[in-house]
Amino acid sequence: MPPLILVTNDDGVHSPGIIALFKAMKEIGDAYMVAPDRERSAVGHALTLHRPLKVEELREKVFSVNGTPTDCVALAVHKILPAKPDLVASGINRGANLGDDITYSGTVSAAMEGTILNIPSFAISLVGEKPFHYETAAPFAIGVAEYILEKSLPYDTLLNVNVPNIQYHLIKGIKITRQGKRVYDNAIQEIYSPRGDKHYWIGGGSPFWEHGEDMDIQAVLDGYVSVTPVHLNLTNFEALEYLKKTWKGGAMQ
Amino acid sequence: MPPLILVTNDDGVHSPGIIALFKAMKEIGDAYMVAPDRERSAVGHALTLHRPLKVEELREKVFSVNGTPTDCVALAVHKILPAKPDLVASGINRGANLGDDITYSGTVSAAMEGTILNIPSFAISLVGEKPFHYETAAPFAIGVAEYILEKSLPYDTLLNVNVPNIQYHLIKGIKITRQGKRVYDNAIQEIYSPRGDKHYWIGGGSPFWEHGEDMDIQAVLDGYVSVTPVHLNLTNFEALEYLKKTWKGGAMQ
Repeated sequence: MPPLILVTNDDGVHSPGIIALFKAMKEIGDAYMVAPDRERSAVGHALTLHRPLKVEELREKVFSVNGTPTDCVALAVHKILPAKPDLVASGINRGANLGDDITYSGTVSAAMEGTILNIPSFAISLVGEKPFHYETAAPFAIGVAEYILEKSLPYDTLLNVNVPNIQYHLIKGIKITRQGKRVYDNAIQEIYSPRGDKHYWIGGGSPFWEHGEDMDIQAVLDGYVSVTPVHLNLTNFEALEYLKKTWKGGAMQ
Repeated sequence: MPPLILVTNDDGVHSPGIIALFKAMKEIGDAYMVAPDRERSAVGHALTLHRPLKVEELREKVFSVNGTPTDCVALAVHKILPAKPDLVASGINRGANLGDDITYSGTVSAAMEGTILNIPSFAISLVGEKPFHYETAAPFAIGVAEYILEKSLPYDTLLNVNVPNIQYHLIKGIKITRQGKRVYDNAIQEIYSPRGDKHYWIGGGSPFWEHGEDMDIQAVLDGYVSVTPVHLNLTNFEALEYLKKTWKGGAMQ
């Protein structure tokens, strides 16, 4: 039996990125698309608890949900798919998911939700600006999916894949990387409503990236596809030992 | 000069938890409250990019934002506070932020945003059900804040504090812990709209926790305050080596 694959994203069910990923996953398995009805970028790992969610079947094996990517994975696994999927594939995102930004990312969060549900999962994103070369990323999505279906993944771990937004023949190869670090400038624009009220609009700015060996951003800048193993245990184990030593004593200790 | 402290949360600016935390932080510093205008639980690390945000000054040094906890921290640091704060304190959340659940948590995400902006940060939550003993958590918020202001924190790391929702004198002490692991059952209710459309509502269920030495949940169950150092680098370094070994070769390698 072909593997059962759930395809989702945060750009919405109609985005060209998810259509390219769905097509790619159908080449290697029985793929279902369950995705937000509209763009849900930068939603982080958000579950909708305060209202009911509506699922619409748009075509055969294609469903939209009026919720977040995390909602989509939870509903797909428990209510929509005929069985627990063998793989969750999230993307192809239009734009990078590198460094600390993955904590904001709806694309990566969908893969986190898959991982929490014990389903091997990956997120895939194109690093760059329009026009997006989804045809470059699609073969790497297939390669990563085939690797995962054959070898599975370490406990509690997903793969975060970032593909340079260039033509396929210009890609130099694949690098296994660690999460890089972005230094934010967090541009915030001040704008005024028609009534003259001051508002703030977050966005823009030019982030600066710390460069370093093995870092995701560096691999992409060098023309490689970056594959980062990301786990959900956020404990800083070194800090744990440090804290145990430095925490003040006293009656409460 | 007293330390400048930003107080935020995800339960909203009017919640009793943030009022208790604000009062506690005012005892040790110059505290500002910048918090969502309404409850924003389970929003994850979400930044609002698709619309402008409105800031309202409700009282002296108390501001509401019609956005997420992450928005609040970004706006507070860049636009509202008189200088970069020395500390970000998020909470006191009504309900646990333990195990993998911290990736959904608005409370913890606010502390993540502080950390990304290079400000030592902590999140504090009460583990239990109503009625909430904010008066139990407040002294621990002060203790954690004093520790951080004196010793600072390791790079890229915040403290996630969970306090048992019991009377103060019943607390046995503080334990430095690692993030536990929840096994989800992800209850999803099927309900029908007045027009008879099927909807799904996520929530409820009884999660099962893996128990283990040093785990956050275990400390709380045993009557201790759990303090977990959480970092933003999600790379699974063990998996990184494993992947390098097991990744298939070929032209693209």
